Amino acid sequence: MMKGSSEHGETSKAPMSRGVSKGVSILDLILRFIAIIGTLASAIAMGTTNETLPFFTQFIRFKAQYSDLPTLTFFVVANSIVCAYLILSLPLSILHIIRSRAKYSRLLLIFLDAAMLALVTAGASAAAAIVYLAHKGNVRANWFAICQQFDSFCERISGSLIGSFAAMVVLVLLILLSAIALARH
Amino acid sequence: MMKGSSEHGETSKAPMSRGVSKGVSILDLILRFIAIIGTLASAIAMGTTNETLPFFTQFIRFKAQYSDLPTLTFFVVANSIVCAYLILSLPLSILHIIRSRAKYSRLLLIFLDAAMLALVTAGASAAAAIVYLAHKGNVRANWFAICQQFDSFCERISGSLIGSFAAMVVLVLLILLSAIALARH
Repeated sequence: MMKGSSEHGETSKAPMSRGVSKGVSILDLILRFIAIIGTLASAIAMGTTNETLPFFTQFIRFKAQYSDLPTLTFFVVANSIVCAYLILSLPLSILHIIRSRAKYSRLLLIFLDAAMLALVTAGASAAAAIVYLAHKGNVRANWFAICQQFDSFCERISGSLIGSFAAMVVLVLLILLSAIALARH
Repeated sequence: MMKGSSEHGETSKAPMSRGVSKGVSILDLILRFIAIIGTLASAIAMGTTNETLPFFTQFIRFKAQYSDLPTLTFFVVANSIVCAYLILSLPLSILHIIRSRAKYSRLLLIFLDAAMLALVTAGASAAAAIVYLAHKGNVRANWFAICQQFDSFCERISGSLIGSFAAMVVLVLLILLSAIALARH
């Protein structure tokens, strides 16, 4: 009985395995789309942030925008680069659905995905550190919380982190999926 | 002639392939040691940083240490976690040298390596954002450069980033190596 079932398993293994491989490749494509939307939304939300306060003195207009803080500029640049990379990687991802035995292109994707994971994480967490500072300030370093004045600015920059952190999680999953596809050969 | 050389290549392929696989596994082990040293050095260098200025007023003693800034505390914690993970992953890495055809343990390592890459990058780049602020300050947000007073503190926290960024690069390479090992089956 057991032998029979094992034999049956073996005969149906090849097409089933191909189906699973195809499923993994399709999931890879879907996840890439999610990461593209996440990074694009983050870059746009952060890049279009600015707030002008309704009062001003003779010398100063109180205005805040993302380019006042170099770290937030880096966040926009990092997200744009990762978004561009993900769009460029779509053809390869589609190719993997058709040719599920591709090896070197998957290796290339794993390496670039890991590098892009580092880039988007760097942008997101550096921005998170600055956003935290804007919210809480730091008494010891005499850095004041600017969010008391610029509350809409702060809400916007906090919100724009979400897409980036989502892209981070998706990129970890993409690396795992590519590795699974490689291991199935 | 070409046919001959291809036949010769095929007969010597199996042992050569095993040699390359073993080489990849040994390189993996060496890189893990480098990353352990990097993250450990970063955590220790940051964790032992403090500076007391030689002057003080009646109410305030000017003292700076890493725990004054929550981001630097996160940096120490992140580096410690990644260092602990890398030490725990050593047995698996050694196992891969002996059994170069292991598959699921490599998949597990790729996934965990990617997660740890994200963690160490988050710690390093958040700390870098704060260190940048400590050096340059920000005129628009009224955050002053504290490095003018605490110069030895600033040198120390800047230096401690190096090990962490090195570990980041090593982890990207580790993911690539594991993927290459999987692709060689």
